[in-house]
Amino acid sequence: MHEKPLILVTNDDGITAPGIRALIAVLNNIGDVVVVAPDSPQSAMGHAITINSTLYMSPVNIDEGPQIEYTCSGTAADCVKLAVNQILNRRPDICVSGINHGSNSSINVIYSGTMSAALEAGIEGIPAIGFSLLDYNWEADFEPSKPFVEKITRLVLEQGLPKSVVLNVNIPKLKKEDIKGIKICRQAKAQWKEQFDKRTNPQGRDYYWLTGEFVLEDHGEDTDEWALRNGYVSVVPVQYDLTAHFAIQHLNEWKLNP
Amino acid sequence: MHEKPLILVTNDDGITAPGIRALIAVLNNIGDVVVVAPDSPQSAMGHAITINSTLYMSPVNIDEGPQIEYTCSGTAADCVKLAVNQILNRRPDICVSGINHGSNSSINVIYSGTMSAALEAGIEGIPAIGFSLLDYNWEADFEPSKPFVEKITRLVLEQGLPKSVVLNVNIPKLKKEDIKGIKICRQAKAQWKEQFDKRTNPQGRDYYWLTGEFVLEDHGEDTDEWALRNGYVSVVPVQYDLTAHFAIQHLNEWKLNP
Repeated sequence: MHEKPLILVTNDDGITAPGIRALIAVLNNIGDVVVVAPDSPQSAMGHAITINSTLYMSPVNIDEGPQIEYTCSGTAADCVKLAVNQILNRRPDICVSGINHGSNSSINVIYSGTMSAALEAGIEGIPAIGFSLLDYNWEADFEPSKPFVEKITRLVLEQGLPKSVVLNVNIPKLKKEDIKGIKICRQAKAQWKEQFDKRTNPQGRDYYWLTGEFVLEDHGEDTDEWALRNGYVSVVPVQYDLTAHFAIQHLNEWKLNP
Repeated sequence: MHEKPLILVTNDDGITAPGIRALIAVLNNIGDVVVVAPDSPQSAMGHAITINSTLYMSPVNIDEGPQIEYTCSGTAADCVKLAVNQILNRRPDICVSGINHGSNSSINVIYSGTMSAALEAGIEGIPAIGFSLLDYNWEADFEPSKPFVEKITRLVLEQGLPKSVVLNVNIPKLKKEDIKGIKICRQAKAQWKEQFDKRTNPQGRDYYWLTGEFVLEDHGEDTDEWALRNGYVSVVPVQYDLTAHFAIQHLNEWKLNP
């Protein structure tokens, strides 16, 4: 047993993002921190991994903390794979991803590089948490998030997590005194209604920017969206078994075989 | 009610891949086919979407079938969004993705662009199926897959799918007469044990190729891996609600709030 826990830190906004710097500052109070994070923003990369291209990795010094840091040319999921297999000489006790600049609540979890890193660690059998702040600004204020990051990370280190489960933690954009507490939630049903912005380039060719509007279809008080809109930090236990177990019996009634 | 169903087709291996050409050939027997697929391979892109870069889209003619085709510079998930929002003038009756060159069974579903497209369609409320053949070869033989693609697509068009569920169909690399039938399954527990191949570039800088070994941890006879290894086509109902509902009660026992 090691005295201090070994904490692997990553994100998808890139190693210089204020969100990961705030995360590292908190986690330095808890354990030995090793950072392996993308050298450039990888947002909305979902669970992408780099298999048809080379990966570069370099040690770096970004600030004066005690943490050890590496940048990687790949995605957040690549960073976790590289860390566990090439950089760390023992298994991390926990992997913490974030703090993401912007929400990963509800359906956003599907598109999230932050959560993809946490899921990748979970698949490797490492307890993992993704943290996100509901503020897309690069200059977002991460101070109110810090006590929640510390509390939830310490709880996971002490209690562990159920097998095959990682945590998706979202923090409302509020002053510390206005955050009411922490709620365990389910993922709210929602979708993005896309609105493509069609433009024409200087050569006369049409191109598109993907934009969209978040449409919440689910107002259950047990959802992450409800918690966040009502001033709570939401914690959703997330799994990488995508099987819709409830549908198996129904599908077995189909006449599949002659 | 339209006489023939409108079928949206996409993939992640790119619009010229033999797998999607085989899929289109089958679906032309069933309905009006519109193809919107990436102009280059997008494998292992997970559920990536393009938000920080422009998207191009062009009509193309790849072969002489009756289908209408477009290529897109984005990912498989981008293709579905563009199709539904910019190209199609009515909602497709079904979205079919594939046939992927290589397995998307078990944990591979997490990294799969093919399944990401199907999930994206599901989120949009469109019944969706991803098909994959367990053969990574570009020259794979898709003939034995065709009757299964046709049968399962027709069943989904007739019966619909449970809400929030899409199908992940994997087909073993066998002769038609050796495929025993179709089995509804759950996703087997497995992981990739990474082995990074470290090399040095001509400038003296180290780089890595991600390789790995698939490690199956789950030998349940109700899993997709068991079905495929025993000669069956596996059908896993997949959902995009990632909540580990079973873990909520357990986490509520934690002392989260003062």
